[in-house]
Amino acid sequence: MRFVTAETNGEIFVGVVQEDSYQVIHLRNAFQSINSDFNMPNTLIGCITLGDEFIKEVKYLLSKFDSMQNHDVNGYLFALDDVRLLAPIPRPLKNIFCVGKNYAAHAIELGSEKDIPEHIMLFSKTPTTVIGHEDVVLNHRNVTDSLDYEGELAVIIGKKGKGITRQDAMDYVFGYTIVNDITARDIQERHKQFLLGKSLDSSCPMGPYIVHKSLIPNPSKVNLETKVNGEVRQSANTEQFIFDIPTIISTISQGTTLEPGDIIATGTPAGVGKGFKPPRYLQPGDVVEVTIEGIGTLRNTIEE
Amino acid sequence: MRFVTAETNGEIFVGVVQEDSYQVIHLRNAFQSINSDFNMPNTLIGCITLGDEFIKEVKYLLSKFDSMQNHDVNGYLFALDDVRLLAPIPRPLKNIFCVGKNYAAHAIELGSEKDIPEHIMLFSKTPTTVIGHEDVVLNHRNVTDSLDYEGELAVIIGKKGKGITRQDAMDYVFGYTIVNDITARDIQERHKQFLLGKSLDSSCPMGPYIVHKSLIPNPSKVNLETKVNGEVRQSANTEQFIFDIPTIISTISQGTTLEPGDIIATGTPAGVGKGFKPPRYLQPGDVVEVTIEGIGTLRNTIEE
Repeated sequence: MRFVTAETNGEIFVGVVQEDSYQVIHLRNAFQSINSDFNMPNTLIGCITLGDEFIKEVKYLLSKFDSMQNHDVNGYLFALDDVRLLAPIPRPLKNIFCVGKNYAAHAIELGSEKDIPEHIMLFSKTPTTVIGHEDVVLNHRNVTDSLDYEGELAVIIGKKGKGITRQDAMDYVFGYTIVNDITARDIQERHKQFLLGKSLDSSCPMGPYIVHKSLIPNPSKVNLETKVNGEVRQSANTEQFIFDIPTIISTISQGTTLEPGDIIATGTPAGVGKGFKPPRYLQPGDVVEVTIEGIGTLRNTIEE
Repeated sequence: MRFVTAETNGEIFVGVVQEDSYQVIHLRNAFQSINSDFNMPNTLIGCITLGDEFIKEVKYLLSKFDSMQNHDVNGYLFALDDVRLLAPIPRPLKNIFCVGKNYAAHAIELGSEKDIPEHIMLFSKTPTTVIGHEDVVLNHRNVTDSLDYEGELAVIIGKKGKGITRQDAMDYVFGYTIVNDITARDIQERHKQFLLGKSLDSSCPMGPYIVHKSLIPNPSKVNLETKVNGEVRQSANTEQFIFDIPTIISTISQGTTLEPGDIIATGTPAGVGKGFKPPRYLQPGDVVEVTIEGIGTLRNTIEE
């Protein structure tokens, strides 16, 4: 199941994308069409918070549709081309957790072997950074001359937890999405702590979907690729993580409660603009595509 | 005007504390008692978002009460002792912005003169850290042995803005409160970026009030004092800021939109536990009081 937050005719709705098709089911309308008494939330965070109940209801809905012939699709089935995808979580309820330098080759490209972290490095991006697939990334030329891309796998937390063990960690995952952790390198360096250089408006493209964890049994072994104007810049596999997803979840949650809808970006591999000599930062009009196996492609253009 | 979020009989309400008394006005009930058609929001963030309209309505309400004799106070006037104060903003809509090392003497006590920042250092605390006046701070002894206090003046943003100039910055302020930026020093150092060591549950006591800016005409010249078990540990004046409030607001907002209810902790002065030799970290049962001139005293006890 691939979940989206989308907009059509001015209405924002939560949908599920039909596998092997280019259609999206408007979940609230679809539940109504089968006279379900399920109280469908208005937001994907609301759905995630319901946990297994939500997944069970969606599975039931889809099974009903499979068995119906010529059912009336009016009002709940849309071509993907006819809706605008927002970020699956357009407004997170807190900053996005981000892991820094979680691939050794990336730590080295930004410095040297001694920059490979011994302990997880965590920083955050404000909720105001989030934009959707195909949305425009502001060029911010008045504040930075070194806007950079960072393709990343992001984990969506599915239930509240604290003191989570590595063994139990995957039970707390709802699913996965793609983020592009756009970074102003000059601001990041100037201010030492990363928050400001990571929090420019529109610097967190996210999507297009949140894929339920059942579709990605081993998220620590998926391919990730980032292209700029069609040229491959980052190509890696999450098996190169220094800290895997269970370790990340367990480490954060030892003293900090994780909540449904929390987003954890797991870090970017080698190949960012700053890693080139000379650096190859993003320019107005550039198209950045981040593709992750089993999820899809997140594409955004830098403002002209 | 001192605004609170408080609870009585299981109901959470927004109130205003009567000056020179120990009473709090339940604003929604009070507006009803004068048959106001003002649509009083349920949360203080909702009030702050209304901007000047909210302040105007509260001023009108208070003026009505002043002119009324023997008005019926039943249902909207409570003794402060009869309500439980929550944090004025119990659940911020994003992480709390925090300025690091904004007093030279504090930067030096944590290192040396070369730790005095040339540029604002910004990190964040998750919304799950927030607790109120008199709430218990978890001792977190399973994850840290170096829990430390940091008394700070916090700025509450009053309206949305981006690219705010230093000259205009104070127009974007709603008011001020006190925070204690509780920090796990070992985690802070181990993970390099500060987020994790600053985001333990209950590590952001806040309150007791948000004081409207009209009561503190010069926030960059107020005394701040932190006591542990009655002993003065921090004693400073915000005139010692390296970066003053207009500079902080302007710097953050150059590329990052600020929103009503955003909280910016402005940094702590010298005298934290880590600054002593040997360090004097917080112990179970310790009582920490942060007092800021014109606001009041925020008091919390460390869990036994």
